[in-house]
Amino acid sequence: MQVCIIIFKVLGDFPGHILPGVLFFIVALWWSIKNILKHVCKQQKRSSFLFTKEFFFRVEILEGIVFVGMSTVGIIGLYLVLGKRNQLPDKESQFVLVLHWHHLAIYVFFAMLGVTKILCFTISSLPVSLVKLMLSNAFFVDAFIFYNHTYGRTMVDTFGHQLLSFAIFLAGLVAFIESLTKSNLILKLLRSSFTMLHGMWFLQVAFILYPQNRDHMWDLSDHSNVMFLVSCFSFYYALTYVIIGINYALITWLVKWRLSKLCNSETQLLKNPEQQEESENEM
Amino acid sequence: MQVCIIIFKVLGDFPGHILPGVLFFIVALWWSIKNILKHVCKQQKRSSFLFTKEFFFRVEILEGIVFVGMSTVGIIGLYLVLGKRNQLPDKESQFVLVLHWHHLAIYVFFAMLGVTKILCFTISSLPVSLVKLMLSNAFFVDAFIFYNHTYGRTMVDTFGHQLLSFAIFLAGLVAFIESLTKSNLILKLLRSSFTMLHGMWFLQVAFILYPQNRDHMWDLSDHSNVMFLVSCFSFYYALTYVIIGINYALITWLVKWRLSKLCNSETQLLKNPEQQEESENEM
Amino acid sequence: MQVCIIIFKVLGDFPGHILPGVLFFIVALWWSIKNILKHVCKQQKRSSFLFTKEFFFRVEILEGIVFVGMSTVGIIGLYLVLGKRNQLPDKESQFVLVLHWHHLAIYVFFAMLGVTKILCFTISSLPVSLVKLMLSNAFFVDAFIFYNHTYGRTMVDTFGHQLLSFAIFLAGLVAFIESLTKSNLILKLLRSSFTMLHGMWFLQVAFILYPQNRDHMWDLSDHSNVMFLVSCFSFYYALTYVIIGINYALITWLVKWRLSKLCNSETQLLKNPEQQEESENEM
Amino acid sequence: MQVCIIIFKVLGDFPGHILPGVLFFIVALWWSIKNILKHVCKQQKRSSFLFTKEFFFRVEILEGIVFVGMSTVGIIGLYLVLGKRNQLPDKESQFVLVLHWHHLAIYVFFAMLGVTKILCFTISSLPVSLVKLMLSNAFFVDAFIFYNHTYGRTMVDTFGHQLLSFAIFLAGLVAFIESLTKSNLILKLLRSSFTMLHGMWFLQVAFILYPQNRDHMWDLSDHSNVMFLVSCFSFYYALTYVIIGINYALITWLVKWRLSKLCNSETQLLKNPEQQEESENEM
Repeated sequence: MQVCIIIFKVLGDFPGHILPGVLFFIVALWWSIKNILKHVCKQQKRSSFLFTKEFFFRVEILEGIVFVGMSTVGIIGLYLVLGKRNQLPDKESQFVLVLHWHHLAIYVFFAMLGVTKILCFTISSLPVSLVKLMLSNAFFVDAFIFYNHTYGRTMVDTFGHQLLSFAIFLAGLVAFIESLTKSNLILKLLRSSFTMLHGMWFLQVAFILYPQNRDHMWDLSDHSNVMFLVSCFSFYYALTYVIIGINYALITWLVKWRLSKLCNSETQLLKNPEQQEESENEM
Repeated sequence: MQVCIIIFKVLGDFPGHILPGVLFFIVALWWSIKNILKHVCKQQKRSSFLFTKEFFFRVEILEGIVFVGMSTVGIIGLYLVLGKRNQLPDKESQFVLVLHWHHLAIYVFFAMLGVTKILCFTISSLPVSLVKLMLSNAFFVDAFIFYNHTYGRTMVDTFGHQLLSFAIFLAGLVAFIESLTKSNLILKLLRSSFTMLHGMWFLQVAFILYPQNRDHMWDLSDHSNVMFLVSCFSFYYALTYVIIGINYALITWLVKWRLSKLCNSETQLLKNPEQQEESENEM
Repeated sequence: MQVCIIIFKVLGDFPGHILPGVLFFIVALWWSIKNILKHVCKQQKRSSFLFTKEFFFRVEILEGIVFVGMSTVGIIGLYLVLGKRNQLPDKESQFVLVLHWHHLAIYVFFAMLGVTKILCFTISSLPVSLVKLMLSNAFFVDAFIFYNHTYGRTMVDTFGHQLLSFAIFLAGLVAFIESLTKSNLILKLLRSSFTMLHGMWFLQVAFILYPQNRDHMWDLSDHSNVMFLVSCFSFYYALTYVIIGINYALITWLVKWRLSKLCNSETQLLKNPEQQEESENEM
Repeated sequence: MQVCIIIFKVLGDFPGHILPGVLFFIVALWWSIKNILKHVCKQQKRSSFLFTKEFFFRVEILEGIVFVGMSTVGIIGLYLVLGKRNQLPDKESQFVLVLHWHHLAIYVFFAMLGVTKILCFTISSLPVSLVKLMLSNAFFVDAFIFYNHTYGRTMVDTFGHQLLSFAIFLAGLVAFIESLTKSNLILKLLRSSFTMLHGMWFLQVAFILYPQNRDHMWDLSDHSNVMFLVSCFSFYYALTYVIIGINYALITWLVKWRLSKLCNSETQLLKNPEQQEESENEM
């Protein structure tokens, strides 16, 4: 029991669950935007005026740099937190260290994903599906570690972490299928939605385990709370589709609006000489 | 124990299991009819006289509207039943509320499936495989919730609900494979048969848990009943194939009969002028 | 305990495990022969002299008839054995009846497989992959029932039946993959080998549970026997490949030998007139 | 307990875990080198000067011979160790014999893989994907045996062996996917990395179970050690990608360097006559 309290103090605190949740949510939202934009641009012929192929290439490299950066910040953060460990008794100190290794492993894999992304989009001889493979590896390792992360926790806490592991495992599975098949919008959106679910669930777990308001504390050993989490998880999953759907509508409308504006100015440019000719003819 | 009795009274009553069972059965039967009809029409060249492509398009949109409608009715029904909850003591009331959330999650996903169906068949830029994805999502969420729905139940009751979850999980798996591959009759019939099995099993569970005749009550804690359910489940699965097979035979015969009738009337139309010519020649 | 003894006496007796074992072994051997023959014939151009396409068609229909016949015999056998049940006390009688239903379900699915085979190869409008689907269904139902068949048995007995279920589950999985992909020799041989393993394991289980020689009885509750079965299972699996390999070598050699004989007689037929011409010229 | 001590003495000793670990590591490293070399040669047009198709053919046959050789050595080794068994009491002797059968099964499957490799690359009528199938079979049987190998062990020991089984199961899964799809660099590297992980983990398990230095002994029943192994496993997996990445860079650089050298000497050969001509002209 004492161990648990200490873990929560040092590692698994409120911001420690909010931060990755927000990051995963942003990444997933960004992926859905990127892929919908690509899909819409493919359908609209004149979209090459707005976004060139080079633009998407640079975006991928930037994404890789961001992944590397975030992982590096995470690893540095771990070292800084590690300092506090010395105040703990020996046994607890060791246990906290083990949990630190878990987080480090996750950061390392996301850093490797970033490096792979940068390399694959700068060196042309490397196959691009390697990125998808590293992505699925990062997700699978994440799921593997969360699955083995729940020793000595209460029932609701354990179940919440198992669902975290489940969501990211599904995202990894979709990424693996993607690495084997041709580029497929459906699979990309599915991956985005599972990653977004992972992010949202991090936030939910944070509010369950560390309630900000003491009046709304959860009973972490009540089975009806586990059953409530099941429907919560489903509703969040539904929510990801609503968010992606709104995204889709907004992006389609935006691209069409920009294109129509562009066309108008072009046709005006084309009309002007004609008008001049006409006026010349009139003269 | 007392909790269980109350659940059965409010939520899990006899009509509460009969209704979804009948609905799933009808949906599955309708799917098998639709897909067999499509398959038979593709093979018969002149079938375009009977069913046009537009007809199948409109049918899909109608299906979407029906899904949305049924889910809305279900959600409204949940709110009406929710009123009765106030008569229960506090603890039971909370538990029943949790089970309500479970049912609501399932309705929400089937409503989303309906909306996706309507959107995908009206807006041409949306990929059609999105419908299959939402279908597999609805089925998977259904299976996920049923899997976590069985706390505090007797052995036979739990096993019955696990088989419900199993059938709908398999249907979801087939729908997911469908979303990745080309349109394939075999997979469509397989999906229909699993959905039909799900519907039939709902009916079976209803009759096991709430026997209409008190003389035939089941012993819900006897393991030999669990083993009996195993063979029951297999026989129902066999039955779905018999039903689909009879469907296939009937539809093939019907289409051929309608076509032959159509051809006869046409050839008569073609013959009549000839006969007139002949009679003219005779004159 | 008493229940177990009675089951063994009535249903799960020595011939009751030997018979299906031998049947599965023969079916698997036949499948490997058929598929290797097809493969060899495809590679040899002149093989159409030996085996025509019609021959393979008729063979498939015959296979279907054999499946239906064997299942019917099995179902009739169950009814005959059912008579003995009346001598048992009430509780045991019910349990034996439940196990009977299990066997009946398996027979029904293999009968359905046979019927599907006959229909698909006589009616051309039916897709042939339906046969593969029904095959995987029959295997999966078999695995599902064996998995839920082991209540109240000893450790070694349970493990033996779980391996039976495992082998046939894998065969079903391969058959399902086959129904989705193009005809593939590798998958067909893999399916044959798993089915053969299933048959062999039936024989092994028969000799473990009902030792003919009382001196070599197994201790059914010793865990080292479970570990021994693991390696046994692996060796049988290796054996199936040896058998299939010998089959392959024999069939290739036989087809080549028959073809070379055929060619010789043909070339002699062709030579004879030349010889006659030559002899005429000589004259 | 006594049994465990004896096992460790006879079979599961330090070199008994180091040897397979080193072998799996070398095989995986070799696979990654071979496949990267093939990939680089395909991209470089003039690489046919360095490595011909025949070279890769011979390499495959050599690989097969090495597999058969290593397995034979392993089987002979088992017989030699078997002799020591006679000094043990009866019960322990039997248990050790069972574990011997486990190792024998693994050796038999790798020998069969070798034989298949030799046959498939010498007899052209055999399909090459048979090699992949036998590879996945060998890996799956390996995983199956390791999974059932951990009876009566401590928690950390069991977990270590389960991870061994997990790594080789994943390698088998990738090999099976390979046998169904076209040759794919990503899958080949993935297979190499899982096999390398299996090898590395053998080494890690050897150092955990038989620490060379008594001061660094592990507490085999402490759960925090299990959680530490989880992150260890992940780090080793990351390491395999680093090794494969370095391999890729080295091989690409080497092939380019050799080709440029070759080109230089060729162009010099081409230049020489011109220089001669020029000097002739000068004259």
